[in-house]
This record gives sequence, C-alpha cells and structure tokens, in this order.
Amino acid sequence: MFSDVDTPAVLVDLDVAEANIGRFQEHCNTHGLKLRPHIKTHKLPMLAKAQMKAGAIGITCQKVSEAEAMVAEGGIDDVLITFNILGAEKTQRLRALANRVRLSVVADNMTVVDGLSTAFAGAERPLDVLVECDTGAARCGVTSPEAAASLAGLIHGKPGLRFAGLMTYPPVGGEAHVQAWMTQAVAVIEARGLRVDVISNGGSPGMWRAQDVSVATEYRIGTYIYNDRSLVERGVVTWDDCALTVLATVISVPAKDRAVIDCGTKVLTSDLLGLDGSGHVLGRPDIKVAALSEEHGVLTAESIGFSVGQRLRIVPNHACVVSNMLDEVVLVRNETIIGAEPVAARGKVW
Amino acid sequence: MFSDVDTPAVLVDLDVAEANIGRFQEHCNTHGLKLRPHIKTHKLPMLAKAQMKAGAIGITCQKVSEAEAMVAEGGIDDVLITFNILGAEKTQRLRALANRVRLSVVADNMTVVDGLSTAFAGAERPLDVLVECDTGAARCGVTSPEAAASLAGLIHGKPGLRFAGLMTYPPVGGEAHVQAWMTQAVAVIEARGLRVDVISNGGSPGMWRAQDVSVATEYRIGTYIYNDRSLVERGVVTWDDCALTVLATVISVPAKDRAVIDCGTKVLTSDLLGLDGSGHVLGRPDIKVAALSEEHGVLTAESIGFSVGQRLRIVPNHACVVSNMLDEVVLVRNETIIGAEPVAARGKVW
Repeated sequence: MFSDVDTPAVLVDLDVAEANIGRFQEHCNTHGLKLRPHIKTHKLPMLAKAQMKAGAIGITCQKVSEAEAMVAEGGIDDVLITFNILGAEKTQRLRALANRVRLSVVADNMTVVDGLSTAFAGAERPLDVLVECDTGAARCGVTSPEAAASLAGLIHGKPGLRFAGLMTYPPVGGEAHVQAWMTQAVAVIEARGLRVDVISNGGSPGMWRAQDVSVATEYRIGTYIYNDRSLVERGVVTWDDCALTVLATVISVPAKDRAVIDCGTKVLTSDLLGLDGSGHVLGRPDIKVAALSEEHGVLTAESIGFSVGQRLRIVPNHACVVSNMLDEVVLVRNETIIGAEPVAARGKVW
Repeated sequence: MFSDVDTPAVLVDLDVAEANIGRFQEHCNTHGLKLRPHIKTHKLPMLAKAQMKAGAIGITCQKVSEAEAMVAEGGIDDVLITFNILGAEKTQRLRALANRVRLSVVADNMTVVDGLSTAFAGAERPLDVLVECDTGAARCGVTSPEAAASLAGLIHGKPGLRFAGLMTYPPVGGEAHVQAWMTQAVAVIEARGLRVDVISNGGSPGMWRAQDVSVATEYRIGTYIYNDRSLVERGVVTWDDCALTVLATVISVPAKDRAVIDCGTKVLTSDLLGLDGSGHVLGRPDIKVAALSEEHGVLTAESIGFSVGQRLRIVPNHACVVSNMLDEVVLVRNETIIGAEPVAARGKVW
C-alpha cells in the first residue's frame, strides 16, 4: 500500500477532495448562498485556488500569517480573516495585505477597532470590518443584537474603516437561533441608517442545513474539503467522502488483541471531538485506535489480525489539525501517488 | 510582558531549564544511575548538548529522523533510539547514523530484528540492540521475561547485531513491578550465557523514585528539562520549575467571566493527560483554560479581570507536544529575551 511512501504520512486524495468541493459548491449555488471556504483544513494554496475556480467568492483565514501564505503565489484575490487582529505588528501586515487583495476582517470590541483604524487611517480604500456575533458558541463575539448595532455604529465612524456586516461562528444545530439573532441585528442596525452588506455564517457540521439561515449571504466552511471521522460519526458524510487519511505501519503486535503503529499524536493529534478513540482504520471498523502517545498508536480489537510491517490507513477524528502536523502532505488519486506538497500555511499562528 | 515578541509564542526560560538539568543529573549521580535524556521534550540540539555537558551519557530519540536532526551539528556522540525501526529506507539511514555516533536501538519482534540485521550485516561494528520489555504500560515490548530471553538469544545469533540489554517504558508508579520483572529477565538471560550490559528504565512522573528500580543501569527522561502542568499536578515539581510557557494575548473579553486568547490547539494542543482544562495561567490559579479551538483559547473565572490586549503566560498540560507545534521557540532568561531558536527536530516522525 503506497510502498514508495515512508510512514507515517498524511495522504490527500485529490479525486475525493475535488468531488467534495464540487458537491458543496453546487449545494450553495442551488440555495443562492455564496461560499467562502476556510483554508485551515488544507493550508494549501493549490486547493484554495481549486475552491475559487469551482465558484467560491473568496477564502477565509483565521490569522494574518495564514492569509499571507495563501496569497503569496497569486490566484487568491479575496480574503476574510475571522479573528480579532491586535497589535501594530499584525495590523501593519494587514495593511500590506490589503494592497494585494480584497480584504475584510472582524472585530468584537473597540480595542481591536481602534487598532485597525490607526493602521488604516489614510488608506486608499477603507478596510471592511464585520462585527463578530456570539450566537451561542460562547467563544468571541458581541453577545446581543443591540451590542452588534452599537459596535457597527462605532466602526462606521472610524477613519480607515467601513462597517461591512456581521459574522458568526454558530453553535452546532443552532440554525433557527442564528436566523432569529441575525434578523434582529439587521433590523436594529438598519434602524440606525446603516447597511448590512454581508452576513457570514459557517460550520461543517451544519453544512447541509446552511440554507436554513436564510438571512446569511455567505457560508464559511473548512472541513468539507477533506471530511473526517467526526463528520462521518455525525452522519454528515460517509467514509468514501474522506479525502485525508494517515498512512501508518504496524511496528509491533505484542498480543492477539493489540497492535502498535508508527504514528501517534504527532500526526493524529489528541483531538477527540467528543468521540471514543482517535481515528477509524479503513476497512476495519472492529478496531479501536485506543491510545496514542507521541510516536506510538495502540490499536485494539478482539482479534487484531495484523502482522508487523503491514500498512493501514486511518481517517482521523479531525482533519484540520492533522494538516498542521507535518511539513508536507502526499497527494494521491486513488492508489496513484501524485507527489508531495508543502503545507504552506502550517504552523501559521500569528 | 515580552512586548517585542509577537504572540502566540513558546518561551523557554534557560535559567529554569539549566537548573532542571542540574538537579536531576545530581539526583542520578547520587544514586549511581546513568542519565540518558529524551530529546522529544525540547527537540533542540543546543539543549541536548547542555544535557551531555552536565553529565548525561548520551541521548534518547524516538525516531531516526529525530536522531539525524540532533547529531547534524555535532557534539552528540551517543544515541539510543527507543522505537522498532522498520523498512529498508529507515534501516539504511540508521546504518549511516551508526558511522557517526555510538548507536543503539530496541526491538520487540523478529521482523524488526531481521530488518536491522540485513542493514548491518558486514558493518564494521555490530549494532547494539536492546529488547524492549512491556512491564505494564501495554504499548510495545515482549510481555514476559522468558520472551525477552528468547528474543535476546535470537538477536545474539544475528549477523551485524549485538544483544546489548533490556529497555522498558514503565507504567507510572510501577517501580516495584519493573524491578521484579527486570531482575527475573536478567536471571533467565544470564542462564543462557548472555550478558545484560544495559537495563534502560525511564519516565518523568517517577523521576524522584528512579533509584527504586536498582537493577536499571540508566534512566531515560524527557519532560524534566521543561516540566509542565501534568508534573506539577502530580506533585513532582512546582510552577517555578516550569521552563516552557506559552505567551498569549487576550483578544476578546465578551463577558465578566470569560476572556479569549489568540492561542488554541495549534500551540497548546489537545493533550489533557487526565487533567481538567488545557493549561495553567501563571499567577491566576482561579482561571480555567476551559476550551480550545484551533486558534482560540477560552478562559473562564468567576471574575476574569482581563482587558483586551493584556498578555499572559500559560504552563501547558504537556510540554513535549507544545515543542512540536511551532518552527521556533523564544529563549529567555527571566524577563530578558535571548533570541529565537529553530526547533530542529520538530515534526520529525520518520
């Protein structure tokens, strides 16, 4: 199995990824939603460009350094950074980025807004700022439609900035609540005489219900390009839709019910996402990826049935974090190796 | 707080790391144990050399590629790789490595032994192979002293290899069991006319009880150089002994009891090691690092008391995995920045 590839390795099946891109783009087209994929899942400029080519209006990044890595080789002309960007070092880089692409960012507080305004005062084009709204995920975001309207008004009055709309990272299954929250926020903001051009919603678990938040103008989604065990277990996709797998080798079979592979948290990570075990061994649903240390993975089954040297493929619990572990992934199409691809945005946390 | 450092960043306090190196070296000297630090915690050649200079007999690596990164710039002349190394690609690199340093490896099965023998047949010096023993951790290793003796005999008869002793990754708190297991294994092996030169035991949780396994000749330990929340919570060390911290910035304070920092699993990882929460905010024991997503960390406390833009330092649950996330760490001494250091063995999983 991929005998030319040294293990452990992260394999990305381009046939599957392209099918995933196409299927959800069509879903968005059908429902009149603009699609803005989050690059955190793949971190590869080539796949961001494939998403744009299929019809995406732009990309989403979480950090300035991710956006820089994505636009470095051209072909990406629209970026939304869904993170409060703070500090002169970062806002200056943001301004440089705005000279190269259509750029928008988010803010949920005035310290961030003030910093953005300082950096963009006198800019040729004002920076588009969306207000981040907490619609139930309890992460960042203003916590009421009224607070959103208030911050929108303050952004509107700031040199170098333009209030461009609202953004939320929604709670899983919270479509009705998000719809009500955003509808209310739009009403309050419009009552102040401001326009809400963009309402950006997102999330892979709710991908097939994206249209239920009909007030939204665009949908951000990351994992859908690769999919993973968490989405299969939630019933969103099937194993055949999983483009990213980890290739590992059995290095020890100490007991009839246990084998050890050459791959632990340094590839699969410790992300459980509420699941039991750390991955799904393709073709062996009876196996539990029972315990990981940094370089070892312990597989258990009533009868493990492996011999030392055998190779296997694992669908990880969470694809995005696995993309961040190695400097390159191996591109394949079914059983054919296409080549290694550097993960340009790996480790870009700034 | 370290205002010249862009966040998030991994800080390594060399004063603390050097004190940690010295203290455990002295403990080993006092008890007549040889010390062989595991480089997985720091992944930095400069610190491996500091450990050697303080009195370590050599280093431990988990993978061939880690060992290559460690010996590349010289100064390290003795390496034990505590992993079943499989496949011609890796065993050939192992043979190249053996030309540069005193090298030993482990094996727990004949497929691995055969591969090593094929690669080292005709080598100027045979490769030292230790039998890996499962003394209760249920990862790799032969599962009985008799099986250890049997594999030792087979290694002894193989071209290019020399049976050099026994190695175990012990269960936490299992000192008495490891002592009994190893004593029995030595008896069975010596009864076959073989010598057991090395008995390699290890583990940071049991560091102050290393001498309780008196049959061991050497101790492998990684985390002790940095320490982390897991070791503090187990009562092994104190917060002042923690050399690695994560510097983060508060980017949002959405509620009185919640703040969000610019740092999630891409720096702190999802490793819980049985703990509640994902780290310890220095100086704020009332705070819980309650939830991480990839780039966000949600902190909760009855009264969070932070403002946007404030910086804080977090002791992670598990230092070793945090070392693996970024391409460089920032070396400091107390409040003084020494400089950035590339993490040479980051992501070396082969």
